[in-house]
Amino acid sequence: MKIIRHVGADDLEDIATGGAVLGTGGGGDPYIGKLMAQEAIRRHGPVALVDVEEMPDDALIVPACMMGAPTVMTEKLPQGEELLTAFRQLERLLGRKIDAVLCCEAGGVNSTIPFVVAAATGLPLVDGDGMGRAFPELQMVTFTIHGVSATPMVLCDDKGNSLVLDTVSNAWTERLARAATIEMGGAALLTFYPMSGAVAKKAVVRGTLSLCDRIGRTLRETKAAHGDPVKALVRLLDAQILFHGRVQDIERRTEGGFARGRAVFGGVDEWKGRELRIDFQNEFLIAERDGEVLATTPDLISVIDADSGMPVTTDSLRYGQRLIAIAYPCDPMWLTPAGIDLVGPRYFRDDRDYQPIRRD
Amino acid sequence: MKIIRHVGADDLEDIATGGAVLGTGGGGDPYIGKLMAQEAIRRHGPVALVDVEEMPDDALIVPACMMGAPTVMTEKLPQGEELLTAFRQLERLLGRKIDAVLCCEAGGVNSTIPFVVAAATGLPLVDGDGMGRAFPELQMVTFTIHGVSATPMVLCDDKGNSLVLDTVSNAWTERLARAATIEMGGAALLTFYPMSGAVAKKAVVRGTLSLCDRIGRTLRETKAAHGDPVKALVRLLDAQILFHGRVQDIERRTEGGFARGRAVFGGVDEWKGRELRIDFQNEFLIAERDGEVLATTPDLISVIDADSGMPVTTDSLRYGQRLIAIAYPCDPMWLTPAGIDLVGPRYFRDDRDYQPIRRD
Repeated sequence: MKIIRHVGADDLEDIATGGAVLGTGGGGDPYIGKLMAQEAIRRHGPVALVDVEEMPDDALIVPACMMGAPTVMTEKLPQGEELLTAFRQLERLLGRKIDAVLCCEAGGVNSTIPFVVAAATGLPLVDGDGMGRAFPELQMVTFTIHGVSATPMVLCDDKGNSLVLDTVSNAWTERLARAATIEMGGAALLTFYPMSGAVAKKAVVRGTLSLCDRIGRTLRETKAAHGDPVKALVRLLDAQILFHGRVQDIERRTEGGFARGRAVFGGVDEWKGRELRIDFQNEFLIAERDGEVLATTPDLISVIDADSGMPVTTDSLRYGQRLIAIAYPCDPMWLTPAGIDLVGPRYFRDDRDYQPIRRD
Repeated sequence: MKIIRHVGADDLEDIATGGAVLGTGGGGDPYIGKLMAQEAIRRHGPVALVDVEEMPDDALIVPACMMGAPTVMTEKLPQGEELLTAFRQLERLLGRKIDAVLCCEAGGVNSTIPFVVAAATGLPLVDGDGMGRAFPELQMVTFTIHGVSATPMVLCDDKGNSLVLDTVSNAWTERLARAATIEMGGAALLTFYPMSGAVAKKAVVRGTLSLCDRIGRTLRETKAAHGDPVKALVRLLDAQILFHGRVQDIERRTEGGFARGRAVFGGVDEWKGRELRIDFQNEFLIAERDGEVLATTPDLISVIDADSGMPVTTDSLRYGQRLIAIAYPCDPMWLTPAGIDLVGPRYFRDDRDYQPIRRD
């Protein structure tokens, strides 16, 4: 199997940063996921990153991730062992060995958590994911578009409780896993969506981890060279700058395990006197400037700290922060009717339709 | 194996009535459970009732039951097939055949649901249960006192979803199963507490189904002979009559999947001018007459319709009904320190201690 590269503990810095950018405000705190993955790699050795095309059609590929509201996750550091236990339990259920690990989403935590399992098991990690970004619910993956069942799913907590789900739809998996996660204290580790190599080649968003790495490296190197990290990021992602502003108002509530709300930014510099509103549910969903919609889910909206060039999550938004909002296109799989049904604005109880990013 | 008796479809009438009496206000609507069991027996044949002493020490005995708030259950008739699927799934998990079915509680639904599985599988049903009455939470069984784990547990709904739980304690099983049950619409079927014949001989409350049958028959025959069914019941159960009265006030709320509340009765006949209050959580928990506690959980408090002699559940209490409240002693296993910890008044957030039934 041709290996793209071996990922060592130090490489996780860039990947976690890039994951937090693609996490579009959600996907968990990059610090926690990075620490867990680094510890696992230091203990077990580097992780082999492979292209999904390298996987045999009959290979068994399984995503691993953390579920929960980011606001809860930052208070509760998960242990890698539980995830490994869940992985082994899924192997027993399926009656065969797993051949490769996969990410389900890009995000601070879920771009790095799969490295923990890959390092501990010695399995390769597929360079891709099920979103190309982060989304709040677990049926919101390109795997669902391709008919992959989320179950059998193994979900476990830090206390030693585990549950195996078998459901009639991925939406039911989300409901039951969410209820269990809330009861378990707000965060749980899970393995799900077992799929063959043949299916993965169709259903996986390609190159996500390489892109995370490139984003993180671009930000780091540009800052080291005293350049403009946001400009470099915009170029790399073919992004549109939506706004420069300061956080004026944040309305935030934790509802049914989700961090829901809206952030309002007041313009600075050439945006002075103007206003940007972004609605979020864990992730930034819709950006509206002075009443005009500029970008909607499933396209990506990221918010970057104007000083540090680092991505900002919805739960770390603070009054007065000076931020730059950007938007860039999602994976084309999301723009199919099935994709828009799963993750378009109307799913999030917004009555607006998807519209492509408004370019100046 | 010596069989106590074969239970046919017609025998279910008395057992369901008796179960509703021992259900102490909870345990579900006797009508639903009876219908399901009768249909299963008509299709598959009678069920062999056996004493637990007849089971070999290495036999595998598994309880089956329904979980949910009675107020929800009456609107949602479960199918027997799901329970059978859950039973088969547990057998696969344990890697062996189940030898006998067991009730976890006495109650309108849970005294009769196990007949559905026993009839469909052709397995004997043990004449006993895990409470000798009904209780609202699933760790509240004599099995817990004897160190039996509630997991592996298989829980399923009427839509085809299922989950397998493995937990670190029976209290955690309750929390996670309750969350799933609520998400599934308020009612779920489950098999749990797999135990050996040797353990069952220590942990099972003996003769519960025979007692249910005797209670139902006594009420039916006394009424047919124009006798006093309540007097006959009091004699059979060595019960104390607490009150004759009418429902004056009912405070009822569904909280976290439970039907919680308090009923106040105004006295009639020799109790005129006096008042009885009964607190409940699915089941009647504490009876207090004119400020004096007469009976507390885990002793049994049943409320009987003065006209029909039939037991009344907490969710069928209606303003103006003329009722008789009685109390009678629980199985001695509940009066151990471990038993009182599990089901004594303080567990139900009442600050009073257990006290034996006040006899006139």
